[in-house]
Amino acid sequence: MEANIIKYRFWSEKAKSLEPYVPGEQPKDKKYIKLNTNENPYPPSPKVLRAIIDSVNESLRLYPDPDCTELCREIAGYYNLNEKQVFPGNGSDEILAFAFLAFFNPGNPIIFPDITYSFYPVYCDLYNIDYNLVPLDDEFNIQIEEFFRPNGGIVFPNPNAPTGKALPLSGIVKILDYNKESVVIIDEAYVDFGGETAACLIGEYKNLLIVQTFSKSRSLAGLRLGFALGDEKLIEALNMVKNSFNSYTIDRLALRAGIEAIKDDEWFQSSRQKIIATRERITSALRKLGFKVTDSKANFIFISHESYKAVDLFTALKDRGVLVRYFNKPRIDNYLRVTIGSDEEMDKFLEIIREIINEQV
Amino acid sequence: MEANIIKYRFWSEKAKSLEPYVPGEQPKDKKYIKLNTNENPYPPSPKVLRAIIDSVNESLRLYPDPDCTELCREIAGYYNLNEKQVFPGNGSDEILAFAFLAFFNPGNPIIFPDITYSFYPVYCDLYNIDYNLVPLDDEFNIQIEEFFRPNGGIVFPNPNAPTGKALPLSGIVKILDYNKESVVIIDEAYVDFGGETAACLIGEYKNLLIVQTFSKSRSLAGLRLGFALGDEKLIEALNMVKNSFNSYTIDRLALRAGIEAIKDDEWFQSSRQKIIATRERITSALRKLGFKVTDSKANFIFISHESYKAVDLFTALKDRGVLVRYFNKPRIDNYLRVTIGSDEEMDKFLEIIREIINEQV
Repeated sequence: MEANIIKYRFWSEKAKSLEPYVPGEQPKDKKYIKLNTNENPYPPSPKVLRAIIDSVNESLRLYPDPDCTELCREIAGYYNLNEKQVFPGNGSDEILAFAFLAFFNPGNPIIFPDITYSFYPVYCDLYNIDYNLVPLDDEFNIQIEEFFRPNGGIVFPNPNAPTGKALPLSGIVKILDYNKESVVIIDEAYVDFGGETAACLIGEYKNLLIVQTFSKSRSLAGLRLGFALGDEKLIEALNMVKNSFNSYTIDRLALRAGIEAIKDDEWFQSSRQKIIATRERITSALRKLGFKVTDSKANFIFISHESYKAVDLFTALKDRGVLVRYFNKPRIDNYLRVTIGSDEEMDKFLEIIREIINEQV
Repeated sequence: MEANIIKYRFWSEKAKSLEPYVPGEQPKDKKYIKLNTNENPYPPSPKVLRAIIDSVNESLRLYPDPDCTELCREIAGYYNLNEKQVFPGNGSDEILAFAFLAFFNPGNPIIFPDITYSFYPVYCDLYNIDYNLVPLDDEFNIQIEEFFRPNGGIVFPNPNAPTGKALPLSGIVKILDYNKESVVIIDEAYVDFGGETAACLIGEYKNLLIVQTFSKSRSLAGLRLGFALGDEKLIEALNMVKNSFNSYTIDRLALRAGIEAIKDDEWFQSSRQKIIATRERITSALRKLGFKVTDSKANFIFISHESYKAVDLFTALKDRGVLVRYFNKPRIDNYLRVTIGSDEEMDKFLEIIREIINEQV
């Protein structure tokens, strides 16, 4: 108690109440095979790297374009939208933070799955937004009918995290059709690895906001760039919030990188196809070892084994230099989330998993 | 009314109520002499540019260090603090946004000057924080005694914006001594151009938070980087808020640039000294032309003329390719804020001002 009084001196009531999101560890003690934060094992497009280098000059003394006009235009072109239907942000997390404030109200509970991205309850806490959880079924599928109830807004990832399971577009349409009075946010951080984007529905549903990121499928986690797609009026609200917070959230180099990353579609396609192929190969191999592996459409898999505790596997893997993600949470505390790395990394992962299992037999 | 209903469909009550900050324009129509957003006319250190280029590689696929450990260490060393007394952010505006939430409470009004950085009331609006304005005197000086009253927090820039006038450290100490129960935020965005930083007071005052930026004196507006200095417990609260908002706010290239910018002190000293010298020269020249010019310690001057309306000068300057900042606000609506550019730019500015004045005589 005494300790807390000292800790909290000068903190706002809000700061005292927060329980922040904890990202996957970024250890500095030694070199790991890092399969814990869903980074892309392949580098960004060489054209992106070249474009960034060409932008490192005296112009860095000037503020970036606060409206990100050129980047919006490029993204809009890619998704067949107009540039006023695009909102870029400093990573998709920042965009989600803005969106919760722009579209959800205290006193009108929003809904999201019980197993999902664990940043959502943190945003709710930050803005005093109530929420109700809707349960996934026993196979971790989103049950569409669970979203047929009054709500102040809806958010879920598609594919879902950390399960990797995707809803088909037909399911999204059903949810949108039932919920025409609240904003539905589809968090498509992982959609490029086999999901179906709902971007084609934006013209029809004025309440649909899609959030995507350059961190995964475009190998730019280190540059902090994401974007939202939606009706112009939703994008206008995001700009209202952003401009009440920080006029310039995206720097000049990230702007340039984003434009070139969208342009180099060949690199993007090749990188994501390689990851999908590796995922399918590793999924089969793990199933042969007796693992239960969800049918993932993301750049990670979600695995469990009847005979070995996930937390023990986590520790054994870490001891052998492989980092994966373990969530000590209801329903998923016997699972591991494993990012799909390069083929070499995943072969090593399999080899070590086999070692661990044999040891324990 | 009808139009507003359409505009606001799906917006939260908060989004409807916001009146965002409006930054100085970043025109794309033609090449201006840009003296409107307090950018530095000199480029970043060549060592900074080199370090960024060396970091443009496949590592961009990986998230940056969320704790910014190396950058914190470098800044701490520069200010004789420890790294837990440093919080880096995506520009000083983002840090201010976090700080208002971390330290101020709804229902307990904070105080700031009536003439000051116009983002402060926007943050208050964003978080439902009440505020009271304390008036500057007729010469735009901060009146220290005005801060000797009950409050839920204090924030002001030193030097102040857009006046450029600075409080000496002795004045800051008086304000801190009177306000030991509330957090006092000193926004030192412009301190490197002739003000006195309060960083040396951090050990003594647990309620002092200083906010600085790399955008002005270190010529990195395009990279989005700022930092706060304060007691470890204040920094911990900022991290709580940041980690409830976005785990990674600063990208890999900005982190590297920040470290090198602090290291290259020679470049920093030379750049700011040039700007100070130009400011003093232009101040004298304008006074000879009959302008009233505040005694600025920033990289801008705040000017007014008895015989020429500021708004007319603003328009005449813009027509002739010179952008300055005009604020249509009580008490300062006959002033212009003019960023100190290079000597060439400022000579051109003077030449054009003389033309305008002669024309109008």
